[in-house]
Amino acid sequence: MTAVLDVPSGDAARLDTPAAGDPRLARLSLNQRTTAQWSLREALDGARAAGLTAVGLWREPVAEVGLDTAARWVADSGLRVSSLCRGGFFTAEDPDAREAAHADNLAAIDEAATLGAPTLVLVPGGLPEGSKDLAGARERAAEAIARLAPYAGERGVRLGIEPMNPIFAADRGVVSSLRQALDIAEQHPADQVGVVVDTYHLWWEPGVVEQIARAGERIVSYQVCDWILPIPADNLLGRGMMGDGHVDFAAFTRAVAATGYAGDVEVEIFNAAVWAAPGGDVVATMARRYVELVEPYL
Amino acid sequence: MTAVLDVPSGDAARLDTPAAGDPRLARLSLNQRTTAQWSLREALDGARAAGLTAVGLWREPVAEVGLDTAARWVADSGLRVSSLCRGGFFTAEDPDAREAAHADNLAAIDEAATLGAPTLVLVPGGLPEGSKDLAGARERAAEAIARLAPYAGERGVRLGIEPMNPIFAADRGVVSSLRQALDIAEQHPADQVGVVVDTYHLWWEPGVVEQIARAGERIVSYQVCDWILPIPADNLLGRGMMGDGHVDFAAFTRAVAATGYAGDVEVEIFNAAVWAAPGGDVVATMARRYVELVEPYL
Repeated sequence: MTAVLDVPSGDAARLDTPAAGDPRLARLSLNQRTTAQWSLREALDGARAAGLTAVGLWREPVAEVGLDTAARWVADSGLRVSSLCRGGFFTAEDPDAREAAHADNLAAIDEAATLGAPTLVLVPGGLPEGSKDLAGARERAAEAIARLAPYAGERGVRLGIEPMNPIFAADRGVVSSLRQALDIAEQHPADQVGVVVDTYHLWWEPGVVEQIARAGERIVSYQVCDWILPIPADNLLGRGMMGDGHVDFAAFTRAVAATGYAGDVEVEIFNAAVWAAPGGDVVATMARRYVELVEPYL
Repeated sequence: MTAVLDVPSGDAARLDTPAAGDPRLARLSLNQRTTAQWSLREALDGARAAGLTAVGLWREPVAEVGLDTAARWVADSGLRVSSLCRGGFFTAEDPDAREAAHADNLAAIDEAATLGAPTLVLVPGGLPEGSKDLAGARERAAEAIARLAPYAGERGVRLGIEPMNPIFAADRGVVSSLRQALDIAEQHPADQVGVVVDTYHLWWEPGVVEQIARAGERIVSYQVCDWILPIPADNLLGRGMMGDGHVDFAAFTRAVAATGYAGDVEVEIFNAAVWAAPGGDVVATMARRYVELVEPYL
């Protein structure tokens, strides 16, 4: 495995780092979890300092400073919010828990609208504790999305169903392929429900190029990071910087671009080594890798 | 997570363990890798002692004692050989390496025929070192299978394409779903090329019940073990004893049975804790779990 970070040392590396105003950075968005070591304030400042014009936000750090403060900071920063992570977790069997999830998702839609995020990313949720009824969990996720969709439409926020790598099917996301996510999304108007196309989750899917074409205007977010091995003990943290693993970003990005997708490209990396590094180094590495491996194919 | 093994201690547990002659064991096969702590000789003796009538063999331990000796031991044991593991590893880019793989697979077909195994399990292979061309690797696997199929037919051995959990797509198996495996298998006569249906690899697949029905007579092996969390550092060893994880064996087994599948049910578990236990305890636990969770749905 290659290094997680290209620490920008030496003139050559610095010259290679795209700077503010570089048009190649125009669609690159820093998902906040890539720099989990940063507060919201630091992420906004860090993204701007690196020449980015968009960020993907998470609800928890937004809640820490308060929604209104966060919305003001975002407006003052001039950054676009490419998405808000995350709603979802729809799979509970207990009716009270499902009602609570619905209410929480309504709140998340409101937060996305307030922050100016066009998309709320939905993580479907895993199997309930002790349950093996995967089909039932999938049905409940689809039902919950159907119930949310009209409200999302009213608020001008598109729900983004995130199909997740089957590695997470038991504990996090029961929607396991883009094909399956589209089967659910297509039951609703495209301005209400779309799909999140994330290379980590979908790189292995047979026929994914055709499914991306099928998705078309339903792609509400394109997220990139790499599939790396070995998988760490906490399997949530196995995402790598683009170029460190096995994903063919050229092929994947071409397929997304061919749909006419004109939105931002979020880099979302959960990785203990990335989180242990200085945030500025992470963003610089991310920008270089993006410009090399993703942007030329957009 | 529940215990890996129900160590048979106390009269109640012993009474629960199905004994030789129990008709519920008639289709249970011990895949040799489940008791990796045992030699071939020990596995044959251990399977018989536990009342089983079938084993799944691996090429390496067969080669250790020599093919002719192994074939004689098997014949003398009275056990069926449900499958031979494994051929495959088709994805090299280098033409010489592909020729070598072809020759090795011809030899594996001969070994299966000599051992009386109706099926040679094919593990497709992962991405070549440094390659990100997943589509290309998949094409090479399909081409290699096409080249092997007629010879398998001549020798009376069915090739079993094993779709593998996407967790292995980079390093072990580029065929990632039953749907995809069937797309390849259906290009060949059903008596030459079929599919291996393994709960660990396929439990997450959207629409898998429909794909199992589609597979029909192409199911050449039904293998069972559980998806457990957390995934260990060596991700190959993350398989659990039936009942320790998240797989719905009732639903899966009913779908396989509905195709008319009348073959053996192999238990194949790669798990360091299972391998560290006495082989007899492993087989006793396996038999109890099978009788409880799988056999009633056949």
